[in-house]
Amino acid sequence: MSAPERVRVAIIGASGYTGGELCRLLLGHPRAEVTAVMAKRAAGQRLDEVFPHLRGLLPLAIEAFDPDAVAARADVAFAALPHGESALVVAALRARGVTTLDLSADFRLHDAAAWAAWYGGKEHPAHPAAALLADAVYGVPERHRAALRGAGLVAVPGCYPTASILAVAPLLAAGLVSPDGIIIDAKSGASGAGRTPGLATHVPEAAEGVRAYKVGGTHRHTVEIEQELAIAVGREPSAIAVTFTPHLLPMTRGILSCVYAAPTDAGRDAGVYRDALVAAYAEEPFVDVLPEGALPDTAHVRGSNRVHVQAVYDARARRVLAIAALDNLVKGASGQAVQCMNAVFGWPETLGLGAAPMFP
Amino acid sequence: MSAPERVRVAIIGASGYTGGELCRLLLGHPRAEVTAVMAKRAAGQRLDEVFPHLRGLLPLAIEAFDPDAVAARADVAFAALPHGESALVVAALRARGVTTLDLSADFRLHDAAAWAAWYGGKEHPAHPAAALLADAVYGVPERHRAALRGAGLVAVPGCYPTASILAVAPLLAAGLVSPDGIIIDAKSGASGAGRTPGLATHVPEAAEGVRAYKVGGTHRHTVEIEQELAIAVGREPSAIAVTFTPHLLPMTRGILSCVYAAPTDAGRDAGVYRDALVAAYAEEPFVDVLPEGALPDTAHVRGSNRVHVQAVYDARARRVLAIAALDNLVKGASGQAVQCMNAVFGWPETLGLGAAPMFP
Amino acid sequence: MSAPERVRVAIIGASGYTGGELCRLLLGHPRAEVTAVMAKRAAGQRLDEVFPHLRGLLPLAIEAFDPDAVAARADVAFAALPHGESALVVAALRARGVTTLDLSADFRLHDAAAWAAWYGGKEHPAHPAAALLADAVYGVPERHRAALRGAGLVAVPGCYPTASILAVAPLLAAGLVSPDGIIIDAKSGASGAGRTPGLATHVPEAAEGVRAYKVGGTHRHTVEIEQELAIAVGREPSAIAVTFTPHLLPMTRGILSCVYAAPTDAGRDAGVYRDALVAAYAEEPFVDVLPEGALPDTAHVRGSNRVHVQAVYDARARRVLAIAALDNLVKGASGQAVQCMNAVFGWPETLGLGAAPMFP
Amino acid sequence: MSAPERVRVAIIGASGYTGGELCRLLLGHPRAEVTAVMAKRAAGQRLDEVFPHLRGLLPLAIEAFDPDAVAARADVAFAALPHGESALVVAALRARGVTTLDLSADFRLHDAAAWAAWYGGKEHPAHPAAALLADAVYGVPERHRAALRGAGLVAVPGCYPTASILAVAPLLAAGLVSPDGIIIDAKSGASGAGRTPGLATHVPEAAEGVRAYKVGGTHRHTVEIEQELAIAVGREPSAIAVTFTPHLLPMTRGILSCVYAAPTDAGRDAGVYRDALVAAYAEEPFVDVLPEGALPDTAHVRGSNRVHVQAVYDARARRVLAIAALDNLVKGASGQAVQCMNAVFGWPETLGLGAAPMFP
Repeated sequence: MSAPERVRVAIIGASGYTGGELCRLLLGHPRAEVTAVMAKRAAGQRLDEVFPHLRGLLPLAIEAFDPDAVAARADVAFAALPHGESALVVAALRARGVTTLDLSADFRLHDAAAWAAWYGGKEHPAHPAAALLADAVYGVPERHRAALRGAGLVAVPGCYPTASILAVAPLLAAGLVSPDGIIIDAKSGASGAGRTPGLATHVPEAAEGVRAYKVGGTHRHTVEIEQELAIAVGREPSAIAVTFTPHLLPMTRGILSCVYAAPTDAGRDAGVYRDALVAAYAEEPFVDVLPEGALPDTAHVRGSNRVHVQAVYDARARRVLAIAALDNLVKGASGQAVQCMNAVFGWPETLGLGAAPMFP
Repeated sequence: MSAPERVRVAIIGASGYTGGELCRLLLGHPRAEVTAVMAKRAAGQRLDEVFPHLRGLLPLAIEAFDPDAVAARADVAFAALPHGESALVVAALRARGVTTLDLSADFRLHDAAAWAAWYGGKEHPAHPAAALLADAVYGVPERHRAALRGAGLVAVPGCYPTASILAVAPLLAAGLVSPDGIIIDAKSGASGAGRTPGLATHVPEAAEGVRAYKVGGTHRHTVEIEQELAIAVGREPSAIAVTFTPHLLPMTRGILSCVYAAPTDAGRDAGVYRDALVAAYAEEPFVDVLPEGALPDTAHVRGSNRVHVQAVYDARARRVLAIAALDNLVKGASGQAVQCMNAVFGWPETLGLGAAPMFP
Repeated sequence: MSAPERVRVAIIGASGYTGGELCRLLLGHPRAEVTAVMAKRAAGQRLDEVFPHLRGLLPLAIEAFDPDAVAARADVAFAALPHGESALVVAALRARGVTTLDLSADFRLHDAAAWAAWYGGKEHPAHPAAALLADAVYGVPERHRAALRGAGLVAVPGCYPTASILAVAPLLAAGLVSPDGIIIDAKSGASGAGRTPGLATHVPEAAEGVRAYKVGGTHRHTVEIEQELAIAVGREPSAIAVTFTPHLLPMTRGILSCVYAAPTDAGRDAGVYRDALVAAYAEEPFVDVLPEGALPDTAHVRGSNRVHVQAVYDARARRVLAIAALDNLVKGASGQAVQCMNAVFGWPETLGLGAAPMFP
Repeated sequence: MSAPERVRVAIIGASGYTGGELCRLLLGHPRAEVTAVMAKRAAGQRLDEVFPHLRGLLPLAIEAFDPDAVAARADVAFAALPHGESALVVAALRARGVTTLDLSADFRLHDAAAWAAWYGGKEHPAHPAAALLADAVYGVPERHRAALRGAGLVAVPGCYPTASILAVAPLLAAGLVSPDGIIIDAKSGASGAGRTPGLATHVPEAAEGVRAYKVGGTHRHTVEIEQELAIAVGREPSAIAVTFTPHLLPMTRGILSCVYAAPTDAGRDAGVYRDALVAAYAEEPFVDVLPEGALPDTAHVRGSNRVHVQAVYDARARRVLAIAALDNLVKGASGQAVQCMNAVFGWPETLGLGAAPMFP
C-alpha cells in the first residue's frame, strides 16, 4: 500500500472522552479530515452540544451508526465503543473495506477463548467476530510497528497495558528481569472511567480519596498485559501471571504504572536497567527515558502522546522498579490510535501528535 | 511593514508559567522559531530541567538576559518578567529595534502617574521607561487590532482584565449598560499566582478552599480594567470606578469573570445584551458567544486561546450579568501575546493558536 | 417547655449527604441518640453500606419511612428530603407530635403563594401542607433565636441563604447599607449538589472548571434570601430584589458568599461596617468576625458549624463588600439543624457542635 | 502508675500540620488541656494567626521552646519537630520528668547505628540522645500496647509505617505470608510533606499529577517498617528487606498502603488472609476489617483515627495483597500520638478520638 495523501475519517462513539479526544487530535492532523461523527444516544445533537470545547472548531452533527454511510464518506474509522458492541461495528466496517482502528478490547486478545473467558457475557458468550482476530494488530507501534504497516484492523490497547508494557517489555526482552512474579501497581485519573457519572467519580466522594479496585487478578487488562509480556520473552501467554492492581486517583488524566520485577542476576550494575530502556527507545519519537534520578510524573505528559519512563534498581531488596507515565486519553487511547493510523499508512508517526504536553 | 515570512523569537523570563506556555505555543507556530530562552535564576540550566514536559521538544539551554544577544539572534522578544524589572529589559530591547511583547504590567497603563501610584515602589518610585508608554499598544486584538499592526511594543494585558473587558466592553460601547457602579467578581486558578510556591497555593491549604483576596479596590488590575472600559464609553479613565474582587480557586487554569452592570434602560428585551455580544464577536476567531441558556465554564476553554462569553438579563433585579471564561495562561497571557505578535505582523491571528481546548 | 435531659432522634432521608452529616454530628451529641435512620431507595441496607465512614460507629439498618415508627421510637425527627416530598412527611410527623427539623425548602417561605410560584410543579402545584407554614420558624438561630425556643417545626435554611444572611443582615439592620441593588455572588463546593452523580460533578468535567448556574434570578434560594433581608429592614419580602449568582467550584465542601451593597452614606469611616458585624456577633458562639485585613476562607471552617465573616468598604467605588465562609453541609445544613434543635430545647447551642474545623 | 484524672499538655512544634492537628484533637479530649503551644519561627504570634481554623477555640500565644516552662505548666508534651532537633528537645523534657510523645523519627529505631546510617548528617552524625533509645516505645498501640502503659517516652511512628504495619503484620505473625520479597506501594496526600510550600505541592504542579519519589530503598520509613515486620516474625531487623515506593497524590490527607507478599502456602483458601486480619483486630477500636469484596478508601477514614484494612488473595499470580487506608495526620501522626497518651495513662484509648470520619 502506498501512503495516501489524505484520508477522510469517521469516529464511531464520538460522544465519549476518547471520541472527543480523537476529534481534538485529528483537528490538528495535516492529512486527516473528520467527515462523520456517530454515536448512539447522542445521535441528532450537534457535536458541540455534547462537547462545548469544540464550539467553532468542528461543526458536525452526530449521526447514528451506519456502516454504509461510513464506507461512502470515510476511508478510516475509529471505533470508540464498549466491547461486544464494537466487534459487530468493526465487522461491518471491515466487510466494507474501511481501515478500522478499534479502541475497544474486542480485538486485543489473539485468542477467542481468552476473550470469552474475560469478556463473554449474556449477550455475547462467544466473540462476535472471531474470524477477524487473526487480522488484528495490537496497536503499540513501539512493539509492533512492522505489522501495523498496511494493516486493515488495529486493536488499540488499553491505557494500563500501554504504560505497563512500555515500562517493562524492554527489560524482559533483554533478559534482565524475570517474567515470573511481576507486580504492577498502577494509578489512573478519573477520565479512565469514562464519561458516565457514578459515585466513584462524583467529586465529593472522589476528590480526597484514593482506592484500589478490581484487585486480585480480576481486572481485564491483566490478560492483555500478560499476552504482550509473553511475546517479549517468547513464552505462551498462559505461561505468565502478573499481579495487577489498578487505582483510581482524584485527578482527571494520567496513568502512572509501577512495575516491580526480580532481576535475573542480582549482581548487575544498577544502571543497566535504565540503559536497556535508553537502547530500546533511542529512536522513538514519543518515549523519553528520564535522566538518572528523575522520576516520571503524569503532569509532565498531560495532553500529549508522550511517555516518560525510568528504571531503578533497589539493591537492598534486589528488585527492579520500572515506571511509566502517560496520558490515558492520548497515548493510552486516542493519541495511540492516531499514531497507529500513521503507522498503517506509512506516514511519520508524529503527524498530528506533535503538540507539547500542557503544563501546568 | 510587510509581513515577514518567519521570525526568530527570544523568550525572556522563560522559567515561569507564562514563559513555559510561550514555549509550548510557539513550538506549534508555523512562522516562529524560538532561538533563545533567558531567565535570571534558572540561567545555566537546560530548559527541560526547569520544564520536564518540554523534554525532547525544545533542546535549549537557559541563558542570562543579554539584550545584544537577543538583537543578534531574534527578531521578536516576549518578556515575561515582574513589573519594574520588565520596563528596563523592554527599553534595552526597543533601543535595539527588537519587536517586543511585554507580558508585565509596565506598559499597560497609558499614564505614567497611574503607574507610579499603583506600581511604584522603593526600587522604582517612577516608571523606569516612561518615554516608551506612548508607543505601547494595549494588547487585546479584539479591541485594538488596528493599532497593533506594525507596533514595536505591545503591552499584553493581565488575565483578569482580558476576561472582564471582553465580557462587558461591547455592552458599554453599545450604550446598553452604565459604566457607573460596575461590579466584577472574578475567579482564578492557582497558576495565576505564578510559579513561586507559597502557603496560598500549597495543596493542603488550597485544595478545599476558596477565598477572595486584594478586595476593596486594591488589586492592580482594577485600574487597567477601568482604563479600557473608559475607552469603550469615551470617558477619561479616572471617571470610572469599578468594584473588582478577585478570588483564588482550587484549580490550576482558568478565569471566570462575572460582570454586574446596570442597564441604561430597564425595559429592553432580555435578549439584546447577548445580541450585542454576538454582533461584536461575529468575526472574531477566538471569542464564542454561547447559545442562550448556556453558561461559560473554564473547563471548556482550557489550554486554548478561546473565550466563551454570555450575557443574561435579570429582570427581577434589573441587572445585567456578563460572563467570560478563558484560560489565564493562554488568552489571559501567552496565547494573547502570540495573537498580538500575529496581529503586529499582519499574519492570520490564529497562527499557532488553532489547537482545540483540552477537555476533559 | 422545660429542657429534656435526652432525646431520641430519627433521621429521615439518611442516605444523602446531609443525612450522613447528621449521623456524624449527632454521634458526638451528649443529649441525643440516633434511634432510627430512614430512607426510600436505601431501605433494607445497613447504614454503613451506604456510608462506609460510619462503620463501627452507628450500627443501624435503614428503614422505609413510617411516621408511627418514628413517633414510637423518637422524640425528634430531622427530615432531609426533596421539597414537596418533605412537606408530607413533616405533616405526618407533626400530626404525631414529633418535634421536626426540616432541611428541605418546604417551610422556609412564609407565604404559600411564594412556595407555589418557586417550587410548585406537576405533582404539587400548591403547598402540600400550607396550614403548617405559620408554625414554622426559619432556622437561623442568630436571627430567630427567641422564636426557636419550644418550636415544633423548624425550617432549616439553605446553604447559600445562611451565608448571605449572616454576612449582610447586620449591616442592613443597622441601616448602614441599602436593601436596594444588592448583588450576591456565591461559590459552592460540589457536595451542595447532593449525592446523585451527574456530569456537572463528574471529576473529569468538574475538577478544573468553575461555572455559574441558575443565573438571572432563577435560583430558588433567591426568594428565601429576600424574605430574610426584608425582615432585617422591616420591609415586605416583595419589596426587595437581590441579584443572586451561584457558582459550582471544584471542591467538596464550602460556601463563600460575597455580598455587594451600596452604603447609605458614602462618607462613613471604612471601619464601621466591620464594627457592625462585631457588635452583632459578639455573643455568638459560631460566628467569627475576622481581624481587619483577614478574609474568610472556606478551608478554615470546614467540617465545623463555624462561620467566618468580614466586611470591607471600597471607598474608590463606594461599595460595601460583606463576605461569609461556612461549610455547606454543617452550618449550611446539618450543623445548623442540630444548633436549632439545641435552641428548641433551650440547651446550649454548642452541644454536639464544639469540634474544631478540620484543617488542612 | 495509677491513671491521672486530668493532664496538662504542651505542644512543641505547634505551627506545623501535626501540631495543628494535635490542637484540634486535644480540644475534644475530656482529660487533657492544652496549656502551652511552642514553636521556633512562629513564636510571638497568636495560635489563631498561624491556624485561622482555631479562632475562638484555643486562645493561646505561641512561645519559644523552654523545657522549664513545659515542666512547670504541663504533665505531658507532644514534640512535633524535625529529626535531630527533636532528640535534644525530648532529652530536655525527659530530664525534667515530662511524659513525652515524640512525633519525629528520633526514637523509632531501636538501634543508634541505624539512626546514624539513615538520619545522621552534618549537624548530628550520631544520635544526639542515644541513651534514651532503650526507654522509647514504638507507638503503635495495636502492636505494643503493654509496653506503652506507663512509658515515659513514646516514639510515634510515621504515616507510611503505621499503614503498612497494620496491613501486613498480622499475616506475618500468623505465618501466612513470607517476610521475604515484600513490596509496599504506598500513596500519600500532600499534607504528609508538611507545611513548608514547595514546587511538588504547588497546586499548578501537583493538582493533576501523580509521581513516585525516594524509590529504590532510599525512603527513611523503609527501615522503620522492616524493624517492625521483623519483630512480627521474630527476626533481626537486618534480616528483612522490603521494597518501599512512596507516591505523592493530588489530595490533602490520606495514606493508602498496598502490601504485596508471597503466601507461605499457595494452596490455602483465599479467605484465610482476611480472616487473620479479623482475628487480629476483633477487639481494636480503631481498625476495621472491611467486608469481603470491599476495598479501603482514604475518603472513608478522613479526619479520624480509624483504619480500614482488607486482605485479598490473587490465586492466579499466587500473591497476597494487604491494603490499609488511614488519615496520615490522625492515625498516621497526631491521632495515634493521642491514642498512645491514652495507653500510657491506662485510659480508654478512644478518649478524644471518638469522632466519626468526615465524609464527604
